[in-house]
Amino acid sequence: MEQLDIGWIGLGVMGEPMARHLQAAGHRLHLYTRTASKADALLKAGATLYDSPAALAPHCSVLCCMVGHPSDLKQVMLGDDGATAHLPADSLLIDFTTSSPALAREIATLAAAKNIDSLDAPVSGGDIGAKNATLSIMVGGSETGFQRAASLLDLVGKTVVHQGGPGAGQDTKAVNQITVAGTMIGICESLIYARKAGLDPETVLKSVGGGAATSWSLVNLWPRILQDDFQPGFFIEHFVKDMGIAIEECDRMGLKLPGLLLARNLYQALIDQGKGRLGTQALIQALDQAG
Amino acid sequence: MEQLDIGWIGLGVMGEPMARHLQAAGHRLHLYTRTASKADALLKAGATLYDSPAALAPHCSVLCCMVGHPSDLKQVMLGDDGATAHLPADSLLIDFTTSSPALAREIATLAAAKNIDSLDAPVSGGDIGAKNATLSIMVGGSETGFQRAASLLDLVGKTVVHQGGPGAGQDTKAVNQITVAGTMIGICESLIYARKAGLDPETVLKSVGGGAATSWSLVNLWPRILQDDFQPGFFIEHFVKDMGIAIEECDRMGLKLPGLLLARNLYQALIDQGKGRLGTQALIQALDQAG
Repeated sequence: MEQLDIGWIGLGVMGEPMARHLQAAGHRLHLYTRTASKADALLKAGATLYDSPAALAPHCSVLCCMVGHPSDLKQVMLGDDGATAHLPADSLLIDFTTSSPALAREIATLAAAKNIDSLDAPVSGGDIGAKNATLSIMVGGSETGFQRAASLLDLVGKTVVHQGGPGAGQDTKAVNQITVAGTMIGICESLIYARKAGLDPETVLKSVGGGAATSWSLVNLWPRILQDDFQPGFFIEHFVKDMGIAIEECDRMGLKLPGLLLARNLYQALIDQGKGRLGTQALIQALDQAG
Repeated sequence: MEQLDIGWIGLGVMGEPMARHLQAAGHRLHLYTRTASKADALLKAGATLYDSPAALAPHCSVLCCMVGHPSDLKQVMLGDDGATAHLPADSLLIDFTTSSPALAREIATLAAAKNIDSLDAPVSGGDIGAKNATLSIMVGGSETGFQRAASLLDLVGKTVVHQGGPGAGQDTKAVNQITVAGTMIGICESLIYARKAGLDPETVLKSVGGGAATSWSLVNLWPRILQDDFQPGFFIEHFVKDMGIAIEECDRMGLKLPGLLLARNLYQALIDQGKGRLGTQALIQALDQAG
């Protein structure tokens, strides 16, 4: 494989291990991160650190982003010191952030004007998926861009699917999170019922875990709740961010999804209680309070 | 296996094939059904038909029930011509109906006074599970009763789990249906979003069907909805009955489960439109109208 100069912005719990896979494959990494210490391991292995996205951009033929919020993305890509204006023509932009479809389309339009291929490529699979390169990557953008990115995406993900034009990756991630929202309500409400009725939830799982009621959430999160384990597989505050993006997009499209709104409100109540850094299975605490 | 005299009340889409498995195993069947024609095949194979549960009961060492509603169950078991008062002492009662935990406990108490073992044993797995004897059977009642019934339950089900004392089978079924309720909201809302956003749902399923968003409902019901196939795997009107039982029990226990209430209200709206005999995947029609 050709060794590329790859820029990477955002070295959090997802971004750092993803960048490491690219470096391990022999690519040269150019880094920007708000917290410089997070770059230590990659710098030791030969990466270069820059003090702004704008300073980093000219050195890259590919730029990857994995930041927290759409507002962060807007700043690092489109802000005064943003990368987009300084990327070489013909470069490739891959944004892994879960962000808004509208912003993805805005970036893609600006990029296209400079002959830059831009992909929105949000992921699911959590920090474990990032470490093991088993992420599901939902890609929006041109077919050309997708083909250019494919070999890189395969280094960080296992299920890499081109979902359509700019924004389609973000829309697919929204679909994923809307599905999870309803499912989480179902599994937490049913566990509350099981406990209140005096059932043994582990025995109940033997009956309901194999049939039409089953889901990844049921099989994986019931056992954690039963152990009083509310450690994050996925942070509540990130899930609320993602649901907020989906709701904003629903508003734009004229859709009203009552289950999604219910889930967002219940989870928001947990954030208001300072529980935003618990795992999403802590929804049961909000429903316990509602009852 | 010892050949038993088994009474069977209720020969609907579930009950008839279940009874057939017992007959095929060599047991003698004694039948009561409101619609006599449904007994034809079993009668040809040697079963006997009675004109009331009370007339049937004295001939049975085991009595099985699979009727529609708790009110039907109450009538056939506890009504003027009901079976309970006429069952031999030491007989075994197995109720497969999805009914209320409170009624299961009431029947068990009356049965115990006559030295009859009583089990509530609601099932999931639908008509296909009934035909193939692959049902999940959730059993409440005494350990003695469960042991007595085990070999018979194995003839009609694949996953047979003793969940606790009288009513625990019904409570477990409620847990199952509460889980399904939330999950159905999630998968229908997400499909509405996917379509509105212009995504190709089959391609989306490749991204979201294998990860943390996945569920039996997503993988099995999205494809049916995409084909405009609203034929019942499970009737809306039965699901609303089951959710109504769960909500009644929640009220009794002082629980409020907002997702369950939302699902029941959405499905009830479909019944009000004459869609009660569609499959549960038609929830998407209620959500489309709500949006």
